[in-house]
Amino acid sequence: MSQCCCGCAREDLPWSGRGTDLPISGCRFSLYPMTDNFVPIILGALEKTDTTRVWSESDALSTVYRGKLPYVVDAVRALFVNAYHDGVHMALEGQFSKGCPGDVSGDSVLDYDGEAPNKATAGEAHFPVKCKIALYPMGTPDYIDHIAKIWRLAEAEGLEPTTIHYATRLSGDVQDLFRFFEKVCTEMDGAVSHYIMHFTLSVNSPTAE
Amino acid sequence: MSQCCCGCAREDLPWSGRGTDLPISGCRFSLYPMTDNFVPIILGALEKTDTTRVWSESDALSTVYRGKLPYVVDAVRALFVNAYHDGVHMALEGQFSKGCPGDVSGDSVLDYDGEAPNKATAGEAHFPVKCKIALYPMGTPDYIDHIAKIWRLAEAEGLEPTTIHYATRLSGDVQDLFRFFEKVCTEMDGAVSHYIMHFTLSVNSPTAE
Repeated sequence: MSQCCCGCAREDLPWSGRGTDLPISGCRFSLYPMTDNFVPIILGALEKTDTTRVWSESDALSTVYRGKLPYVVDAVRALFVNAYHDGVHMALEGQFSKGCPGDVSGDSVLDYDGEAPNKATAGEAHFPVKCKIALYPMGTPDYIDHIAKIWRLAEAEGLEPTTIHYATRLSGDVQDLFRFFEKVCTEMDGAVSHYIMHFTLSVNSPTAE
Repeated sequence: MSQCCCGCAREDLPWSGRGTDLPISGCRFSLYPMTDNFVPIILGALEKTDTTRVWSESDALSTVYRGKLPYVVDAVRALFVNAYHDGVHMALEGQFSKGCPGDVSGDSVLDYDGEAPNKATAGEAHFPVKCKIALYPMGTPDYIDHIAKIWRLAEAEGLEPTTIHYATRLSGDVQDLFRFFEKVCTEMDGAVSHYIMHFTLSVNSPTAE
């Protein structure tokens, strides 16, 4: 049984890097609005988000968007912006990834070009976001060096990276963070055959720091 | 600057595996009760959990427990059980990890033995949990093989693993899932110098599958 690092079991695939040459990026995410009103906020955000440029699937735990990286980032950013409500504490937990050895060529949308469909509606929203990330370049002994590059990128982007156990804290405007996420994915795509970047975005937290 | 895969920046450490011989496991987690009442649920669960056997630190995004693996698992399980309320949809997102090259010997509690302090209060709670995990054995080209072992372990434990993009779905009783988490961490600790296992636990979801 072939199995990717994410746990995908694929009888029909060999072990070695089957998925790494596929131009399919993806993001699996879960939205957590801390309010009794969470269902309409989540469903409303999903409905408001234009997913014509990504393949999408939801289950009880999370939703996944797959396709060309810019469209995946555009859709996740729009989902988060569309779910934002003043004063409502909400978190988005997710993982961007590309190159899983067990990945498949299906379940994706790759035959589009041009402007990201949610740019006009979500590209101008601005609000402060607390963030943490953890980056995993897989299958390489020099993974530390790759992460060091991303740490320096976060510094250069003004996202004020700070150290916490098992993750890196960042903070910035929602647009700056998603722009950074796309840069990280692009950098990792060129550097390693398979990477995963987990992230947490939090808004309107009542916890003072 | 030395930097671990999680992004930890440590001026005082060399690049190579500094943290891998430390017997310190950890779990960083965030609790998301989808209710207006989220603050007392989170704070109440944190207060009810005996953390005398782990090192603990909270910020606006998450809490981390560090120490000997059985005590870390005991504390996270207790936190989740203590936060559980009938009918309240809640998720726990977290990552168990050990062996980060940038880890430090401090920020931990290692000088204890004996029974896990929360076992009596949390060890007998039972409720069904939907789960997903993603396992990352770092720095090794054969990471796929290590994950295949864990997939088979999940099958053997009756947690019904199924494939989703970028993760593996599991389902089971809360006790069975945390027992599995401890087995995964123990297995990975013996197999690789550094691993991370991300997990999502969800209860009382209104989404039918």
